[in-house]
Amino acid sequence: MTILKDSLNGKVREEIIKLANLENIDIGKLMKRIIKGHAIIMTRPNCDPIGIGSVFTTKINVNLGTSDSKVDINEELEKVKIAQKYGAHTISDLSMGGDIDFIRKRILQESSLPVTTVPIYQVVAEASSTINISEDQILSTIQKQINDGISSIVLHAAFNLNDLHKLKGKRIMGMVSKGGTFTASIMVENSIENPFMKNFDYILEMVKEKDIIINLGNSMRSGCIHDKLDDFQKSELKINSTLAKKANKQGIQVIIEGLGGHVNAQDLKAWIKIYKKRSNKRPLFVAGPLPTEIGVGYDHIAAAIGGALASGYGADYLCMITPAEHLSLPSVNDIKEGLIAYKIAAHVGDSMKFGLSKSFDNDLNLSRQRFLKNWHKSFEYSIDPEEAQKRHPIDENTCTMCGKFCALSISKRIFNLCSNNEAEPKP
Amino acid sequence: MTILKDSLNGKVREEIIKLANLENIDIGKLMKRIIKGHAIIMTRPNCDPIGIGSVFTTKINVNLGTSDSKVDINEELEKVKIAQKYGAHTISDLSMGGDIDFIRKRILQESSLPVTTVPIYQVVAEASSTINISEDQILSTIQKQINDGISSIVLHAAFNLNDLHKLKGKRIMGMVSKGGTFTASIMVENSIENPFMKNFDYILEMVKEKDIIINLGNSMRSGCIHDKLDDFQKSELKINSTLAKKANKQGIQVIIEGLGGHVNAQDLKAWIKIYKKRSNKRPLFVAGPLPTEIGVGYDHIAAAIGGALASGYGADYLCMITPAEHLSLPSVNDIKEGLIAYKIAAHVGDSMKFGLSKSFDNDLNLSRQRFLKNWHKSFEYSIDPEEAQKRHPIDENTCTMCGKFCALSISKRIFNLCSNNEAEPKP
Repeated sequence: MTILKDSLNGKVREEIIKLANLENIDIGKLMKRIIKGHAIIMTRPNCDPIGIGSVFTTKINVNLGTSDSKVDINEELEKVKIAQKYGAHTISDLSMGGDIDFIRKRILQESSLPVTTVPIYQVVAEASSTINISEDQILSTIQKQINDGISSIVLHAAFNLNDLHKLKGKRIMGMVSKGGTFTASIMVENSIENPFMKNFDYILEMVKEKDIIINLGNSMRSGCIHDKLDDFQKSELKINSTLAKKANKQGIQVIIEGLGGHVNAQDLKAWIKIYKKRSNKRPLFVAGPLPTEIGVGYDHIAAAIGGALASGYGADYLCMITPAEHLSLPSVNDIKEGLIAYKIAAHVGDSMKFGLSKSFDNDLNLSRQRFLKNWHKSFEYSIDPEEAQKRHPIDENTCTMCGKFCALSISKRIFNLCSNNEAEPKP
Repeated sequence: MTILKDSLNGKVREEIIKLANLENIDIGKLMKRIIKGHAIIMTRPNCDPIGIGSVFTTKINVNLGTSDSKVDINEELEKVKIAQKYGAHTISDLSMGGDIDFIRKRILQESSLPVTTVPIYQVVAEASSTINISEDQILSTIQKQINDGISSIVLHAAFNLNDLHKLKGKRIMGMVSKGGTFTASIMVENSIENPFMKNFDYILEMVKEKDIIINLGNSMRSGCIHDKLDDFQKSELKINSTLAKKANKQGIQVIIEGLGGHVNAQDLKAWIKIYKKRSNKRPLFVAGPLPTEIGVGYDHIAAAIGGALASGYGADYLCMITPAEHLSLPSVNDIKEGLIAYKIAAHVGDSMKFGLSKSFDNDLNLSRQRFLKNWHKSFEYSIDPEEAQKRHPIDENTCTMCGKFCALSISKRIFNLCSNNEAEPKP
C-alpha cells in the first residue's frame, strides 16, 4: 500500500508521524493535505521524510550528474556530500555520461537524501541519439531506475505533437527544457505521440510498486524573460493537472514542475496564483526562476532572487541554480555556492509565507550573540560557519570593518550612560 | 542658484536636459518631480547626472574607505575603479583611518561618479573619540568636505536625547547605525541635543553654496529582522520629513535614508508604503536590507534579495552590501561581488516597478544571441562578460553542461522538422 492509499484509509504511517514532528504540524492536518494532493511526503529508507507543499517550509533540490563531455564519478559523489552538508533536501541525478546505471547506484549509496531521476536523459544518452528510440526503451529505463531505489521520477508527459507544430516561431527561445526537447525530438522524428502520456497508466503501475513520487516535468517552460506565459504553458499545466488527478486516484503522490526557467519578476505572483488554482493547489516545483538574463556567471544570485520571490508567492520546492548555469557543468564549489544562495532564498521566501516562525530561531540566536559581540558563537547559527570564521579576524572582539569604532560597542556604552544620566540636555 | 531653485523658476538647466535624455523621460515631468521633491538629480562637473526617485531606474551606491585598523589608499582607489567598471552610480567615502582629507581628495580625483561623505565619521576618527567633540568641529568638517567637491552629504539629524533614553532595552540589537551611534554618543556623553538638528539651518546655508544634496541618515534602523518597525524609526522618519521640507524650501534637494538595515521580508512592502506616504514620496535610500541573518559571508546575496524586493516595492536608491559585511573591511573583490549582486537586484526591482522597459534591451539581445548559440556575442550583453568568457569553454558551439545534448540545438532541429512533417502522428 502507498502512503497516499494508507492515508485515505486512515492509517497513520510512521513516516507521517516523523514528518509531522519535524515540521511541527498536526498529524491530522498533514494527512488531510496529503489525501487532497496539496502536500506530498518524499521518503527513503533510513532517511528523514521530506514534506513538500504549502504547509511546509520551502524545500531545495540539487541537480548533479555527469554530462557526455565530462564524466568524473568522484566529483559527482563529492557534490552529493556538499549537497548534504549545506542542507539540500533532495538530489536529482541527471547523469548523461559514462556508465549511468553505475553512477546512479553510487549516488544512491552515498546519499542520505531522496534521489530523483529523469528517465528520458538516460534513454537518450544510452541511445546517443533522439531519433531511433522505442517506447520499450523508455519503459525499461523507468523500471530500472525504480528498482534501484529512487524516490521520485520526472516525466515529460504533458504536450502532444500538435503543440510542437504550433510552437514553431512563437517564442524567442523556443523550447529549452532538455527532457522536453528529447521527448519532443523522439515524437517529431518518428511522428509518434508523447510516449509518457500514451503509457501513463502503465507507468503508474510501475511506480506504485515502490510508492515512487511522480514529478510532472515542465517541458514548455520559457527560456527567456521576454517569452511570456503562453498557451503552451497553460496547456501543459492543464494536462499535468489531469495526469496528477489520475495518479492520485491510483494512490501515487505528485509534484508538478511549473512556471520555472526564465520569468519576468512582475508576472511571477500572478503566474503562481494561476498555477495553484488550475493545479488544485498541488506542490509546485520551480527551477530558478531567473528574473534576468544579464547575470551570466552569477545566475545563482539572479535565480536566488527569483527563487525567493517564487517561494514567497507560494512555490513549495525550488531547484537551485549554480553560477555555472548556461556556461559549463558545475564544479563542486559551484554546487556549494548555488545551494547556499538557495538556502538563503528559500528562507526569505518562508518569512514571506509564514512570518518569523520557528524556522527563524537561528536568526534570532545569531542576532543575540552578535549584539554581545560573541562573533564566533554567532557564526554557529549561520549556514556556513567555516566561511564566516575564515573571513573574520582572529581577535574575537574587533573586526577590520569598523575597527575600534564599533557601533555595537558604542551603542552599549550609550545605554549604560543613559541609565545614569538625565534625559534632559544641559541648558 | 541651485537646481531646485532654477527648476522652481522654470529655468531648464543643462543637467536636466541631459538626465531627461539619459532616462528617456519628459523634461517637464522631470522638473515637476524635482520641484515636488519626489526626485533629485545628483551632479558633478564632467559627470553624467544621476537621477534618483520613482520616475527613474533604481540606482546603486558603493561604500568604500579606510578603517582605523586598515588603511591602504591604493586599495581604496582600486575599489573606485571597480565600482565604475561594474556600473555603480555613486560612491560614498566612509574613510575613518589615515589622512582622511587626503584620501577623500584622491578618491574625488579618481572617481568619475558623484561622491558622498559622512562628516561625523571624519570628526570622530580625527578626535579618536566620541566624548569631547564640539559643534564647531562638526561644522568645520562639513565645510571642508563640501569645499573638496563632494555631491552629497549624510546628516544624522533626526533623533533627540530623549529618544536615546527611551530606546534603552527596547530592542535586541539596540542602535546599529555607525553615524547614528557616533552622534548619539556625543549627545549622551555631553548631555547636548542632536548637533545636526540644532545647526540644520546653518548647514543648509553651507550646502546651498555648492548645491550639495542632503542625505538624511537612518540612525534608528533595525539591526536584526526580529527588531520591528518601532516608534523610534517612525519618529526619525517624521523628523527627517520635516527637515527635508525645510531644506527643499531653501532650494536644497534631499534623499532620505530609511527602512534599511535588517528587515523581515514580510514587512518590507508595508514599510515602504508608510515611508513613501509620510515622506511625501521623497527619494528613498536603503542600505541592504538584509532579510535574514544566517547568510554571514554571503550577505551580498541575502541583501540582494532584500534589495530587489525593496526596489520592486518602491525604494529608489540602494546601498550595496558585500560578502564581508559583519566580518571585515571589504576587499576589492568583495566590492565587485557585492556590486554585481546589486546590479542584478536593482534590475529585477526595476522589472517589478516598470515591467520589461527599455532597460531590458540587454536581456532581450542576450536571449536572441543565446538562442543562436552565439555564446561569446551573448556575453557582451551581460554585467561581467570576462567572467562568462572565463567559465565558458573555448569551443563556441558547445558547453560542458549539456555536451552534445543541447536543448537549443535539438529545439532548432525539431522546428525544422516541424515545417516539413505533418502535425498528425502516424496511425
